[in-house]
Amino acid sequence: MGLLEETVDRISLPDFNARSKAMERLDQLTMPHWALGRLMDLAVELAGMTASVTPAVDERVVVVMAGDHGVTADGVSKYPAEVTVQMIYNFLHGGAGINAISRVSGAEVVVVDMGVAGEIGEVPDTHRFISRRIRSGTDNIAVGPAMTRAEAVQSVEAGIGVALQLAASFNLFGTGDMGIGNTTPSSAIVASVTGAAPERVTGRGTGIDDEQFGNKVRVVEKALRVNRPNPKDSIDILAKVGGFEIGGLAGLILGAASVQKPILIDGFISTAAALIAHGICPRSAEYMISAHRSVEQGHKAALEHLNKTPLLDLDLRLGEGTGAALAMTLVEAAVRILTEVATFEEASVSGADK
Amino acid sequence: MGLLEETVDRISLPDFNARSKAMERLDQLTMPHWALGRLMDLAVELAGMTASVTPAVDERVVVVMAGDHGVTADGVSKYPAEVTVQMIYNFLHGGAGINAISRVSGAEVVVVDMGVAGEIGEVPDTHRFISRRIRSGTDNIAVGPAMTRAEAVQSVEAGIGVALQLAASFNLFGTGDMGIGNTTPSSAIVASVTGAAPERVTGRGTGIDDEQFGNKVRVVEKALRVNRPNPKDSIDILAKVGGFEIGGLAGLILGAASVQKPILIDGFISTAAALIAHGICPRSAEYMISAHRSVEQGHKAALEHLNKTPLLDLDLRLGEGTGAALAMTLVEAAVRILTEVATFEEASVSGADK
Repeated sequence: MGLLEETVDRISLPDFNARSKAMERLDQLTMPHWALGRLMDLAVELAGMTASVTPAVDERVVVVMAGDHGVTADGVSKYPAEVTVQMIYNFLHGGAGINAISRVSGAEVVVVDMGVAGEIGEVPDTHRFISRRIRSGTDNIAVGPAMTRAEAVQSVEAGIGVALQLAASFNLFGTGDMGIGNTTPSSAIVASVTGAAPERVTGRGTGIDDEQFGNKVRVVEKALRVNRPNPKDSIDILAKVGGFEIGGLAGLILGAASVQKPILIDGFISTAAALIAHGICPRSAEYMISAHRSVEQGHKAALEHLNKTPLLDLDLRLGEGTGAALAMTLVEAAVRILTEVATFEEASVSGADK
Repeated sequence: MGLLEETVDRISLPDFNARSKAMERLDQLTMPHWALGRLMDLAVELAGMTASVTPAVDERVVVVMAGDHGVTADGVSKYPAEVTVQMIYNFLHGGAGINAISRVSGAEVVVVDMGVAGEIGEVPDTHRFISRRIRSGTDNIAVGPAMTRAEAVQSVEAGIGVALQLAASFNLFGTGDMGIGNTTPSSAIVASVTGAAPERVTGRGTGIDDEQFGNKVRVVEKALRVNRPNPKDSIDILAKVGGFEIGGLAGLILGAASVQKPILIDGFISTAAALIAHGICPRSAEYMISAHRSVEQGHKAALEHLNKTPLLDLDLRLGEGTGAALAMTLVEAAVRILTEVATFEEASVSGADK
């Protein structure tokens, strides 16, 4: 049995007992019933995921998986592919959006090269960079499969490996992505999994105009027509219309779920990866927390498929894990509500009239 | 000239130059244009409020103003009025929702007695408790005015005084409230200011049932009929259908605005206070940041009147400043984006194709 099957086998349902106990305590807190709404729902979920009424979420990491995409040859992005590698250096020097936002929630940023086009030379901090290169970017999905089936499994297993490695130091994960062109394979994945029309799940990415948008929709349609991914086989979808960083993120999610660690799912690309993880193991969705609603229109269909409602809605469309990093503060709030707020009895406060 | 008039005179428009400079920098950050959406809008606003492209928002305080309400005699709340005082002790002992959430954003919690029914005896930390008692709770608005016009001015000026006192130590404010029964005067204020029908702006408060809700709507209608507040005169509205903590919060907002400090407006009661502040000085709205959308249905009309869109929407309905404390992390994120993310040039990243 390979690492993927072993990992899927280890993913258990959330702990019912911890959920019940958390709910019981939250019912008695010094406030009107369930007055902190979704933060209290989240507290119950966290108790279930971690099998604890005092969930540990203080060691935080956002894992930014990077990869390049052959489909950029078809003009789907405003930015040249070289930006993927340039942004990796920006992440490692602390100058990107994800670095700034991770400082708010006290999260480490770890960058994983899953298969970028250029070489990564010397990096300033080797603890924050992991190389799991499959190869230098996928093939163009508009003319054939992105990668072989073996490479798809390899990318998912690489992500699992990263999760297991980081689980020694961290108890709260966030997903992040970097890859010029990666909204195109993400749209193809969402269309394939949900059955939605490509034009409904294709967005403006980094900010393309109407003409480029029309072209992008045609590229997604062509990718699906040429490759005919099997909607019931997530590895097939990943291999035919996916990307190395998307496979890596699917693995990261499965790996986190297998060790009962909550994982915040960032925006559109991360949610496409979550669809792959969910297709491989539906139970893994129990460990996913949707961080924010992306501007990308395909995000909605993907979230509906996973039956998730995002915590934040701030018109973000950057990726990198920025939404996930931001939502970590809400996870902390949920845990503090569960563990630090006094009950009516503890604080000698009168309850509601019966 | 009294403190109120002086304060209103000192409230200036946001600094146009700082706004422009912030926008210019945000346009050049290493990310697709405005890819962090509302956080970037917020960064521009913060630059304008503080007249700085490096807004200082690291010293945070949530000011919980407490008061009691004569209208509780008419059965508008599920909880007995004694809970207001009990909750003050809970705040001061660190066991309430606001304490837990303030720890997430590193905010201090300062409690102000604006006029609660009971005596506050010894408190554990005198730095975190301020007494500005007008008297032991308002009169019943269903039978007459809540307070005299002089008391209304006094409550607003007390709030201004608190803001000026705390401005020596803090640069980011949040509003919070505690007062059993205070959604009823808040609904009356919102109805009076916006002209909306009482049943449209009255909610379930701490969780009343259908029968109690019908009664509450009738109480709000009666308060407006008996008192006939002048919609063009905010002090009149506050005196006739308001509350001491609501007046205090209106003053806190005006005071913060007068010293160019951003202030996060919590939920329904705080937004009712914001309507009073806005009525006294429309420019004060430029310093308000709407923290979250409350479950209370009257909140919507109040926010529309102020032309504000809340940052968070998490089904909160606790008050205490919990939404404001939570949204402080988003304010921090906005500032870090403005001040810590590298530009394309600084990071040597290729820009978009022209």
